[in-house]
Amino acid sequence: MLKVVAQFFIQSAKVDTALPLLRELAALSRQEEACIAYDLFVNEEDSGHFTIIETWPDHAALKAHSLTEHFTRLVPQLQGLGRETSKITLMKAVDI
Amino acid sequence: MLKVVAQFFIQSAKVDTALPLLRELAALSRQEEACIAYDLFVNEEDSGHFTIIETWPDHAALKAHSLTEHFTRLVPQLQGLGRETSKITLMKAVDI
Repeated sequence: MLKVVAQFFIQSAKVDTALPLLRELAALSRQEEACIAYDLFVNEEDSGHFTIIETWPDHAALKAHSLTEHFTRLVPQLQGLGRETSKITLMKAVDI
Repeated sequence: MLKVVAQFFIQSAKVDTALPLLRELAALSRQEEACIAYDLFVNEEDSGHFTIIETWPDHAALKAHSLTEHFTRLVPQLQGLGRETSKITLMKAVDI
């Protein structure tokens, strides 16, 4: 299982533009057959700092996600609204 | 509902020391009655970058968590093993 934390840092004047793009990205990503979980959050203290927490079965599924129409259309638009580079962290679970 | 992403950046020579502390923190935090979810992950490309993804019902529960014996004992130890300051992000869910 592969966990992904994707952080977007949106310019304050562009948050209203970014929000529907993020929602569309989440809605369409959730429809991918391999998607286990895909949830969108916003920093309580920074309305331009969005975090997507994703769960995929493996790297192949994440690669396929990155090649979908919605990903290749929406992610570059979101990056164009950023005040800094987005951060993507790929993680594996640690047994407790 | 309150989502928390807590990131610890541990010195490479201290990862073996930090890991049992992180596991203990997670195990005891999960036992807190208010805890909805508490999962530990490690960056695939950085064995010292640990991320805890937590879900709490509200700020009061998170505050109570921060006052527990295990939190006040283990978190300062983990911070002492850090190569940089830990990052805590408090987030709310965005409806899709």
